[in-house]
Amino acid sequence: MKNDKKISTPVLRRLPKYYRHLEELSRAGVSKISSKELSKLINVTASQIRQDLNCFGGFGQQGYGYNVDSLRDSLAEILGVTRRYTAIIVGVGHLGQALANHNTLTRSGVDLAALFDISPDVVGSEVAGHVVQNITQAASFCRDNNVDIAILTLPKGEASAVANMLAEAGVRGFWNFANTELSVNHEGVSIENVYMGDSLMKLCYDVSDQSL
Amino acid sequence: MKNDKKISTPVLRRLPKYYRHLEELSRAGVSKISSKELSKLINVTASQIRQDLNCFGGFGQQGYGYNVDSLRDSLAEILGVTRRYTAIIVGVGHLGQALANHNTLTRSGVDLAALFDISPDVVGSEVAGHVVQNITQAASFCRDNNVDIAILTLPKGEASAVANMLAEAGVRGFWNFANTELSVNHEGVSIENVYMGDSLMKLCYDVSDQSL
Repeated sequence: MKNDKKISTPVLRRLPKYYRHLEELSRAGVSKISSKELSKLINVTASQIRQDLNCFGGFGQQGYGYNVDSLRDSLAEILGVTRRYTAIIVGVGHLGQALANHNTLTRSGVDLAALFDISPDVVGSEVAGHVVQNITQAASFCRDNNVDIAILTLPKGEASAVANMLAEAGVRGFWNFANTELSVNHEGVSIENVYMGDSLMKLCYDVSDQSL
Repeated sequence: MKNDKKISTPVLRRLPKYYRHLEELSRAGVSKISSKELSKLINVTASQIRQDLNCFGGFGQQGYGYNVDSLRDSLAEILGVTRRYTAIIVGVGHLGQALANHNTLTRSGVDLAALFDISPDVVGSEVAGHVVQNITQAASFCRDNNVDIAILTLPKGEASAVANMLAEAGVRGFWNFANTELSVNHEGVSIENVYMGDSLMKLCYDVSDQSL
């Protein structure tokens, strides 16, 4: 399912959602689903779903719908979750520990190879089956182990300096929970900033009287 | 700044981002900024920014730009972060503890009132200054304390049952980290589902060869 055209970012942001629902449907024993039924589940219009999936040649059959398992597998391949990625976590506070123990990594094809922290209270302790290493070891570890992704759960003041050091050591992707935009001076580096507060603010707006 | 027209969801999803950047600019001592400069920082086109902010009457002055502090304060009021919301956390694993200790809550105007768990290993322990209570106490606590928001960091199999119980007890907003769509049978309940894996899959796609 190698596709030559570049997928637009809005489509790409919806694919994991489709994938997630198809995984659940498959686990529930559902073998086929129409774009209309999928639309109700996912809260995306049926025409949007058809249009998104047509970007890759389309998988549905008129009057039959989508084969759940084969669509799931195709999306997995497109998203690249069938490949394996090597990741490290930098910053082993509560959030770092939560991510280390979360099945999100495995589900996305990400293997956690090591954890790093700066605090002597944490370095040497065991988290998710790994002994936490000193941050000073991170760059050489990434070089030696071809680390693809660094998960940054460290204070915002240190995030960009650490990211630059790791990009220098070959890390190509940053999943950034430091609540700040990373400034990384390397070509070909991808960054996903996660601002958990944004969705909480949206929720606060929704529950406030202003939304009535 | 009470606005009568309903703000569309796409605009509403961008406002916390504007707010976040304006907070950072203000902290950095910047007093005014043009939509063009803001555009570069935020990665949203200048015309989109002007259009979004015009929804509320517009704050900029031609040839001057936006006053950072006053725009930040206006957005805070629109988003409702100047109000206070009372929240509980249900599920005190690593993620629940991370959120309890995260400044995201305070920044969004959310006061954590209590934490609940089902496990005897966790109930009675202290997290973020609160003694974790048994989940069986959650509904009466919400009723007695007018809890607005429940933060769900519990296994997906239990999420909907717990959400329904809490909605019954008056909770109007759910910030849901249970990796499943909540099914809540109550009118006027708002739900923000957080799927952290979606942004990780997007990142995996970006670092994979397919994106080249």
